[in-house]
Order: sequence, then C-alpha cells, then structure tokens
Amino acid sequence: MRIDGVAYRSIALAADGWSVDIIDQTRLPHDFVVKSLRTVDEAADAIRHMLVRGAPLIGATAAYGLALGLRRETSDAALRQFAEKLVATRPTAVNLQWAVQRMLDALLPLGEGQRLAAAYALAAEICDEDVAINSAIGDHGLAILEKHWREKQERGGAERLNILTHCNAGWLATVDWGTALAPIYKAFEAGIPVHVWVDETRPRNQGAHLTCWELGKHGVPHTLIVDNAGGHLMQQGEVDLCITGTDRTTATGDVCNKIGTYLKALAAKDNGVPFYVALPGPTIDWQIEDGLREIPIENRGGHEVEYISGAMGRGETATVRIVPEFSSAANPAFDVTPARLITALITERGVASASREGLAGLYDRS
Amino acid sequence: MRIDGVAYRSIALAADGWSVDIIDQTRLPHDFVVKSLRTVDEAADAIRHMLVRGAPLIGATAAYGLALGLRRETSDAALRQFAEKLVATRPTAVNLQWAVQRMLDALLPLGEGQRLAAAYALAAEICDEDVAINSAIGDHGLAILEKHWREKQERGGAERLNILTHCNAGWLATVDWGTALAPIYKAFEAGIPVHVWVDETRPRNQGAHLTCWELGKHGVPHTLIVDNAGGHLMQQGEVDLCITGTDRTTATGDVCNKIGTYLKALAAKDNGVPFYVALPGPTIDWQIEDGLREIPIENRGGHEVEYISGAMGRGETATVRIVPEFSSAANPAFDVTPARLITALITERGVASASREGLAGLYDRS
Repeated sequence: MRIDGVAYRSIALAADGWSVDIIDQTRLPHDFVVKSLRTVDEAADAIRHMLVRGAPLIGATAAYGLALGLRRETSDAALRQFAEKLVATRPTAVNLQWAVQRMLDALLPLGEGQRLAAAYALAAEICDEDVAINSAIGDHGLAILEKHWREKQERGGAERLNILTHCNAGWLATVDWGTALAPIYKAFEAGIPVHVWVDETRPRNQGAHLTCWELGKHGVPHTLIVDNAGGHLMQQGEVDLCITGTDRTTATGDVCNKIGTYLKALAAKDNGVPFYVALPGPTIDWQIEDGLREIPIENRGGHEVEYISGAMGRGETATVRIVPEFSSAANPAFDVTPARLITALITERGVASASREGLAGLYDRS
Repeated sequence: MRIDGVAYRSIALAADGWSVDIIDQTRLPHDFVVKSLRTVDEAADAIRHMLVRGAPLIGATAAYGLALGLRRETSDAALRQFAEKLVATRPTAVNLQWAVQRMLDALLPLGEGQRLAAAYALAAEICDEDVAINSAIGDHGLAILEKHWREKQERGGAERLNILTHCNAGWLATVDWGTALAPIYKAFEAGIPVHVWVDETRPRNQGAHLTCWELGKHGVPHTLIVDNAGGHLMQQGEVDLCITGTDRTTATGDVCNKIGTYLKALAAKDNGVPFYVALPGPTIDWQIEDGLREIPIENRGGHEVEYISGAMGRGETATVRIVPEFSSAANPAFDVTPARLITALITERGVASASREGLAGLYDRS
C-alpha cells in the first residue's frame, strides 16, 4: 500500500538487485526506517527481534534469508544450516516453517550453481503469492462492505461506514494488502467512506503502533480507541461491522487471534453487529476440532504488560513502568473466539460460514 | 486499610488537629506522598487535579474543604462562595454536590461562631458514615465469597479463590474499605485465600496504578492483566467470580461503570461466571429506568489515550506518546452494563437481584 503517496511492500528486493529491504516495525509509529538485510544472520535477527512480524511476512523474510545465505555458500550442508537458523527464530510460527520447507524442497534437488538464482526467484514468488491471496481476500471482503454500505444508506443518514478492527492484520503483517485490512483498503479505493475504529491492542499496542500508522499513511480515516471502548460503541450504534485477522483457524471455524478478540465478538453478538474474520487458507488447521480445548495459548512474559514505550518528543523514546514494583502481570497472548460468534470467514477463495461445512466446501475437504 | 502494616484512611484530620491529610493519588503507584490541605483552595485543587478521586472521597474532601474555608471566614456569603468553588471542580460528581449541600444545610442555620466546629464535626461524620457503609458492603459481600469458596472446595482441588475486578473501587476511592474491594479485604482478613485479577483499565490505568498498589500494600495476592485478557481467563476456568463498582445504578439495576465493564460482564455471562456489582445506596438514580438510553456518557479528551506516564527508574517519571502524530483517539469514559448480565448487587443493606424489585425491596421503594 502507500506511505505518503509512495507505493511500498513490507519486504522487497532493494535497488541493488540482491539485498532485501524491510521496514523496521519496532521503530513504528514514531520512526519510519527502511533496513537492508544483507546476510542470512541479518534476516534471522530481523525475525527474532520482530523488526518484521505477521505470519506471511515472517515466511517471506525467511525465504529471502535463505537466498542471502546462498550468496556465500551453496552446499547442502550450508542450506540446511541456514534453514535451521531461520526456523529457530520463532519456533511456533507455522508459516515460517512452511516457507523454509518449501524453499528446501525446491532448492536441494538443484545443482549448487543453480540454487542462488532459484532461491531469489522462489522468494519473489512466495511474496507475489501472498499479495495475490490477500488481494483476493480484499475483493471478497469488498463485496461484503459494499452490501453493508448500501444497506446503511438505504436506512438513511449514513455518513460513513464504521468498521472496528483489533490488533494489526494489515499490509505490515503481510507482504501487501493485509488480511483484515485488505477489504478496507479495497473499499477505500472504491470510494466507500470507510472509517476504522482501531483497538489499541494491549499489551503490545499493535493497533496504536501499526494499524493507525499504516491506515493513516495510506490516507484511510481512523480513530484510535482503548480495547475497553468497543462494546460501548457497539451499544451506541457506532460500529457497523467488525473485521479481524486470525493466527489459527480450526476445521470447525473457531478462531485463535490476538488476546481480546473474543470480547469484541461477544459484544458484536450482543448488539447484532456482524463480526467477520479474514484469513488465508494456510492458517486453517484441519487437524483441530475444538479451539478452546485443543489450541495451546502462549503465555508471554509479564514485562510486556508492566512496561510501555513511546515517544518523548524531539526524536527521543523512553520505556516506562506503569505498575508498582511489587506487582507482577500475567500475559496470555491469544484467545479463542468460538465459531458461533462469527458471522462469516473471508478467505481468498470466497466467503464461508464459520463451520466445518463452510470451510470444507471452500477448500474441497468435504 | 493498611499500607505496609500501618492503618490509613484515604482522608483524615492531620496530627495538628485542623489540616487535612490526603494521599496524592496522582503520584501512585510510584511515589507515596501524603499532602496536607490547609485552605479551601487547596482542597478544591486536590479535587480538580484528581489528587483525590472516587465519589465518596471527593465528597469527604469537599466537606473538609468547607471546614478549612471557615477557618478564615464564617459569613453566609463566604460559606456559599466556598461551596460554589468546591462544586465547580467536578461538575458531574453527584456525591460532591450532595456532600456540599448537606454541609450548607447544617451550617447556614447556625450562628457564625458555631460554624467552624460544626463543620469539622460534620465532615468527620460524613467520613465515618462512608466507612460504615463500605464495611457493611464488605460484610454482605463476604458471605457471597464464603459461599463461592466453600463450593469451590467441595468441587475439590481448590487452591485459591480467583476474583476479577475492573478499575479501582477500593479504599483509595472511598474513605476506607472501598466498595468492590471491601468484600475482598474482608475475605482476606477471614483467611480465605483470595487472589485478584486486576484489569489494567485503560486509558487511565486505575487498575495498574491504584488497585494493584492498594492490594499489594495491604498484602492481598493479585496479578495485573491487560483489559483484553479477562475473557480468555474465564474461558479457561481461571476466574471464580467478578466484582466491580458502579458510578451510577438505575432503578432497574443497569450499571454505569468504567469503560470496559460491559465487556467483562458479557464474558462472565458466556462462561457462567457470577458477576457482582458493589454499590452504596446513594449511587442509585431512582429517576432512571433505561441505562443505555438515558445515561449520558462522558467523552473525555483523546490525550488520555494517546499518552501514558510511568516510572523511568531512579525516581524519574516520563510521559510518552504511543500513537502516530497524525492519529487521534476517541475516549468514552463509561459504559452501561445491562441488569440482565449482573448476578446480584451488593449494597450496605444486603444483596439484591439487579432489578426494580430487588432494589426497591432493599430500599423500601416498593
């Protein structure tokens, strides 16, 4: 999408034709810094230290990371060692393992002399595929937004279409378009007067830091709210629909997403507000039936809750403690939203009910 | 309650017998500073700048503020002017107006020479009444906590009673005991192994700043969580019950409390977790039937969302911006939890269903 009018992807080959440009997302929203990755170690560090985050972008970065490694050494042993190094950076990231395995499967059968060019080509392909998937999610979601906007206008007095989102499932989390935000960008381009309520998304504040930044830089009207506020806005008729992403989707349509998603889905249900989840097919875990019982939830360190960072002005940033010294915090990172609270799933293959039948139909699993 | 073993009230006559000690709550949780109020202007400033907050404590501070004013001038005109000054500090605080009016009604009929002593006596009485009300809420709530603890033990394997609370309805918001926290302090004193999940309570972080501080200083086990986490904890069986306070309660049992309360009540309902609201009778607004339609919700400045303050270490504090410069925030301060989501109301007169019949029965309004 665009940053102040200039088109960007979250990862791209640099002008030199071999190094790889990423946006250092740890510096957002206060500093926009493009960083060039030049070695497999730099790619691994970028993933480990979350300069890049979001499942598709992590996968793409790892793919290019292998290509960077092959510039120095092209043997089987080296390739396997680069792959291990990259996979170890975020052990629970399924997409990372998938991307690295796909690269290995394609590169190992090749002669050493062919591997470097093939790696760059396949990394670019992985990126382009992600963009195509998200663009398709955007198109299917756009049809939903057009319907809601039409209905709102028919009811009269409609000034804007109010959409609530949680966390960041935008183009910064993917290579381009995003998942939850793709329909919103498409609607914005189509001239629908969208306005996005952005949940702050404590404790890591991805909404305040990343979603506000990417929407604002592209020109999409938005307003930040604390995670506590969405229920009240729905009660007051200020939310026309919700769209979130998902980290993992069960075969039955349960959705495991950033902590707090479940609370917004409950409020949406209680107020008759449609609640959509946007996802690429690969996030569906066909082995899991019951999200609440079967998906292990990562408990992260309390430090993320106890401290917060921000800008002090004049380019300085600071980290402050917001809790008494003697108190500690628990920090579950995700929650599960049961399928019964989800209006529909928006995928690259179309829109389905959040159910075994809905998903199986789209993905030929019936 | 206690601070490191020493008994405190949130407001008390100082050792000199005339000035009034408060805790500067804007300095919590990082600094514990007792400030002596010596004039009506200092009392008004303490209310306006939220050194004291919480309806009962604001009322008590205004009552003592009038007494401080009378030390300098005791005429009708002066008394009325002091009253106006105090009421103007927080125009929407019903309890503030009530306390000042009660003081005026008692003092104006007296001769000027009697007013000063009478004002100090009545201010002390207002404080003692608040303590008695909250202690009674605590006793009625204790019976509920004892029941839940007994039942949890009967189910087997019970290590502690997990209670979730939102915002700060503790002794810092009242003169002593608090409302929502009074039953918890009573249970702690009675030897029930309580553990409190403290919602951070964005944007003003009263949970992280005040509830953690007062529970910790008294010795009550607690864990801070972000506002997003409560639903997940309930899904996992980690919450045995919720207790919150309320700023305003309708005649039909709807509760207007800190933004985000509604989301926790929805999650409690969805998971079969009892959701209690503790309140003193005076917060019931007998004129209001429908909380959602009739209670106006204050929209505060976006600044509270966009910036956050905390400790940098070595005694320094800093305020940081956590949002891009070009994004702005909406900041509704309260939401309404419909009576249908509330298990029971805990008052100084006993426990009632959240309904017209329940409340009318307790308060002889039938």
